[in-house]
Amino acid sequence: MRAWLPDWLRHYRREWLAGDVIAGLVVTLLLVPQSLAYALVAGLPAEVGLYASLPPLLLYGLIGRSHAQSVGPMAVTSLLAAATLARLAEPGSGDYLTLAVWLALLSGLMLIGLGLARLGFLADFLSVPVLAAFTSASALLIVLSQLAPLAGLKGGGASLPVLLAGLLGRLDRLNPAALAFGGATLLWLLWARRALKPSLARAAPVLAVLAGVLAVRQAGLESGVPVVGLVPSGLPSPSLPALPLARLGELMLPAFFMALINYVQSLSVAQLLAVPRRERVEPDRELLALGVCNVGAGLFGGFPVTGGLTRSLVNAAAGAHSQLASWLSAAGIALVLLFAGSALQSLPLSVLAATIVAAVFPSVRFGALREAWRVDRADAVAFVLTFALVLLLGVESGLVAGVLVSLGAWLWHSSRPHMVEVGQLPGTQHYRNVARFTTETLPGVLLLRVDESLYFGNARLVRDALLDKVAERPQLTTLVLIMSAVNRLDASAVVMLEWLDDHLAARGVTLALAEVKGPVAAVLARAGLLERFAGRHFLSTHESWRHYAPPPEFPI
Amino acid sequence: MRAWLPDWLRHYRREWLAGDVIAGLVVTLLLVPQSLAYALVAGLPAEVGLYASLPPLLLYGLIGRSHAQSVGPMAVTSLLAAATLARLAEPGSGDYLTLAVWLALLSGLMLIGLGLARLGFLADFLSVPVLAAFTSASALLIVLSQLAPLAGLKGGGASLPVLLAGLLGRLDRLNPAALAFGGATLLWLLWARRALKPSLARAAPVLAVLAGVLAVRQAGLESGVPVVGLVPSGLPSPSLPALPLARLGELMLPAFFMALINYVQSLSVAQLLAVPRRERVEPDRELLALGVCNVGAGLFGGFPVTGGLTRSLVNAAAGAHSQLASWLSAAGIALVLLFAGSALQSLPLSVLAATIVAAVFPSVRFGALREAWRVDRADAVAFVLTFALVLLLGVESGLVAGVLVSLGAWLWHSSRPHMVEVGQLPGTQHYRNVARFTTETLPGVLLLRVDESLYFGNARLVRDALLDKVAERPQLTTLVLIMSAVNRLDASAVVMLEWLDDHLAARGVTLALAEVKGPVAAVLARAGLLERFAGRHFLSTHESWRHYAPPPEFPI
Repeated sequence: MRAWLPDWLRHYRREWLAGDVIAGLVVTLLLVPQSLAYALVAGLPAEVGLYASLPPLLLYGLIGRSHAQSVGPMAVTSLLAAATLARLAEPGSGDYLTLAVWLALLSGLMLIGLGLARLGFLADFLSVPVLAAFTSASALLIVLSQLAPLAGLKGGGASLPVLLAGLLGRLDRLNPAALAFGGATLLWLLWARRALKPSLARAAPVLAVLAGVLAVRQAGLESGVPVVGLVPSGLPSPSLPALPLARLGELMLPAFFMALINYVQSLSVAQLLAVPRRERVEPDRELLALGVCNVGAGLFGGFPVTGGLTRSLVNAAAGAHSQLASWLSAAGIALVLLFAGSALQSLPLSVLAATIVAAVFPSVRFGALREAWRVDRADAVAFVLTFALVLLLGVESGLVAGVLVSLGAWLWHSSRPHMVEVGQLPGTQHYRNVARFTTETLPGVLLLRVDESLYFGNARLVRDALLDKVAERPQLTTLVLIMSAVNRLDASAVVMLEWLDDHLAARGVTLALAEVKGPVAAVLARAGLLERFAGRHFLSTHESWRHYAPPPEFPI
Repeated sequence: MRAWLPDWLRHYRREWLAGDVIAGLVVTLLLVPQSLAYALVAGLPAEVGLYASLPPLLLYGLIGRSHAQSVGPMAVTSLLAAATLARLAEPGSGDYLTLAVWLALLSGLMLIGLGLARLGFLADFLSVPVLAAFTSASALLIVLSQLAPLAGLKGGGASLPVLLAGLLGRLDRLNPAALAFGGATLLWLLWARRALKPSLARAAPVLAVLAGVLAVRQAGLESGVPVVGLVPSGLPSPSLPALPLARLGELMLPAFFMALINYVQSLSVAQLLAVPRRERVEPDRELLALGVCNVGAGLFGGFPVTGGLTRSLVNAAAGAHSQLASWLSAAGIALVLLFAGSALQSLPLSVLAATIVAAVFPSVRFGALREAWRVDRADAVAFVLTFALVLLLGVESGLVAGVLVSLGAWLWHSSRPHMVEVGQLPGTQHYRNVARFTTETLPGVLLLRVDESLYFGNARLVRDALLDKVAERPQLTTLVLIMSAVNRLDASAVVMLEWLDDHLAARGVTLALAEVKGPVAAVLARAGLLERFAGRHFLSTHESWRHYAPPPEFPI
């Protein structure tokens, strides 16, 4: 029995309790408005956000390993869900809700599958700049998507043009009362963030929600301002809404995409939380935990969830030592579901929109672009492209384009390797770029360092570049390829080396190899090239230098 | 005026003339049956093959640089055209012909565009094994596609299942006379290849064509055996058939694909021809020349063309010194178009099918698979997958899958780098893998060589592997990363290095760098990491060794 308990529970220490209780309370206060608001971002009834919050808090505590990770509805996830679902069903319809539930179930099952297949490394192909651009642009899209509800208008959309067109087209139907509620909430939240202590500021959204409910009730404004409306009271029970098989097919690709995004998001939160405690994150375990959380959210009528950065950091800062804090938050959400339904009914939507704007706007950041621009122009291009395409085409196309651009740039660079002539640093056994250092060279011998693995993508270009270098030097008798930076060699490169050797031999130039590494030497051996290069294959550049240096002249 | 003439014409030498004349004649004899047959492979009337042959022979001579390249209808190109066009129109219809012409025009314009944009390097991403598998499987498909016409049956298809189903479904309608013609031709061609001198064997297909025509005429079999049928006499005149814009859109992607395949094919022929003459091939010039050839073929009612391997080798072997040989072949084709139309009318299709089978079957080869298996398993997998998918799904899907697999394998390998601990070869300044060599190490110092560029695809894995190594050695005080094989560094890797440095510093472990190369040092400098690593950044591994070695103990 004890073996089934999570680690933190088996080794629970009394001194953790106070911190966990406080963190549980603080996260509940943060989570209630967040989960209602993100459900609206996803185009779903507000209570679905609460349904989606409860199971993950319990399940992550059972399976996950991060001490303060808080899994639940998140901004980008909700935006992504809205973009997917709006293509497949009418927002507000029963179909739409069914699809949302299945999106959570399917992406959860896929996450579990990826975890069991140990495919967590797939997330590595999202580069830091692409991820930063994606997060910033999504945050901006979310802020823009909340401008309509902030002004009491309907409307939504998954890209900048659609959102702006919708907003401008409905501007004449603006609801001044709703805008007043929204504007006041926004000002209050911004003021609270600047003026209050962080611990107090965290309660600001809940206070805004309470104030909004009370004000609407007092003024009898339920019909004058768009409000949340009927919220069913009680805990959700597990169920599996029927879905035609064809629809399941349509959901597969979006669910896979959703799974990857949520995993990357959740993993980066877990890694951030692990730093101060010097913990190691196990990506495949995180995949599994997040997958179970999503299946749980779906079974109880919720939509896709992931680890939330702000919420988890707040959880850690408020003193969470273990996942007991999340279990206590789950209890808090359960209480809200049981007893606060009728109160939430009168909550103005514009108040929720304002809490989203205040929460998400700080995520619009360009620091990563500045950094990328300094380090690697290709990274900067990938940032700009991802950012622009997320805004213009939507989150999925933008992110896919960003990943393709960063992969393409990587491949492109590897297809045109850096090659330098090296010479001996006088009096040493070291060899360096002749253009950067004062070096000595041997007449008739070219020492050339190839700074890239050789493979089909660069075999032709390397061959042509080598032929050019040889053609430039009619006196050349020997070309030594220094392979210290050649990490791999494929079949195309083997063909190229054979061809090159024949071609150079016919011109009277000897091709030699130096500093071939173990894995590359193994490939050469299997391809029969070690025999071909017998006597022309040196452990170090210095050995090849001594071999090809003219014999010393004796003084007469 | 002279400046506009091609190089070979300006510097023409008298002694080239005999070889060029003979080569021109031999290629004509080869090209007439080939061009008729490949038009049938493409699902087009036989004379379209002649139309497609004439302009490229003239145009390549004006623009191309290879002395013996013979551009015209080719087997794989025709199969690819058939696969594309059969999806868009009914074979035999006027629409089908119009689309074939536009496929040539569009892919020609794209080739010109690629050449002007200097994008010839795109072809490099086809690895040797993928290309070999593609060629072999296409050849097999072509042979299979000719079994029906060989037996006097109709039928076609772009994949093995479709071809087999069509063949088996029509087997009861087999035409014994056609099969007799086809079988006799095939036997004759196989015998000629084994028994005759190569120079005579080259004329075997033309003799078979002549014999077929004469036999059908003598026996009055025109209605009993499927024959080529009415061939319009005379030279084609330039024209541009009308095509609705929507159809143009449908052709864009296939045309791009066709352009790439034809370019790769043509480039590899040019490279092969350049070897014995030690010429250099200019890929962008070849792109341009091939593009103009295709536009020319399209304008005169032909279909896509490319450089043919067999034909070009025959051209070179027969003595072609310059493109004059091709111009003479063009004259030969013109004569056939002017005067031989009525004769070709009685040519049995099964004879042409037999010439295709005999010509293409030798291209089904598995040598590249054996080679790839020895050198690199990923290459072998890419071969098998490409081969299987070309047969099962058709040429396009198969090739795309092969390219994706080889790129994916390359990325996957680069995402899990080889990292080795190195030690000093005793008494030298050289450092090698401790597992392969007898080396000395320093207590508390780990010298680790990372055998891969650092980028987003491997940053996390490298970080985790380094942390593991550090965790295994509680006594460790210094970790030296040897960067001789790190050729590039991107923004994600910079973030990782900063994080790792902080993390290790907090554990009391010093992170140092050695043998950072110029381009990587430039990135570190721009990211401000050179300052961070001041005093922990060594030109050579040996310097870092001397720096961290304990001071020598003095004898008491």
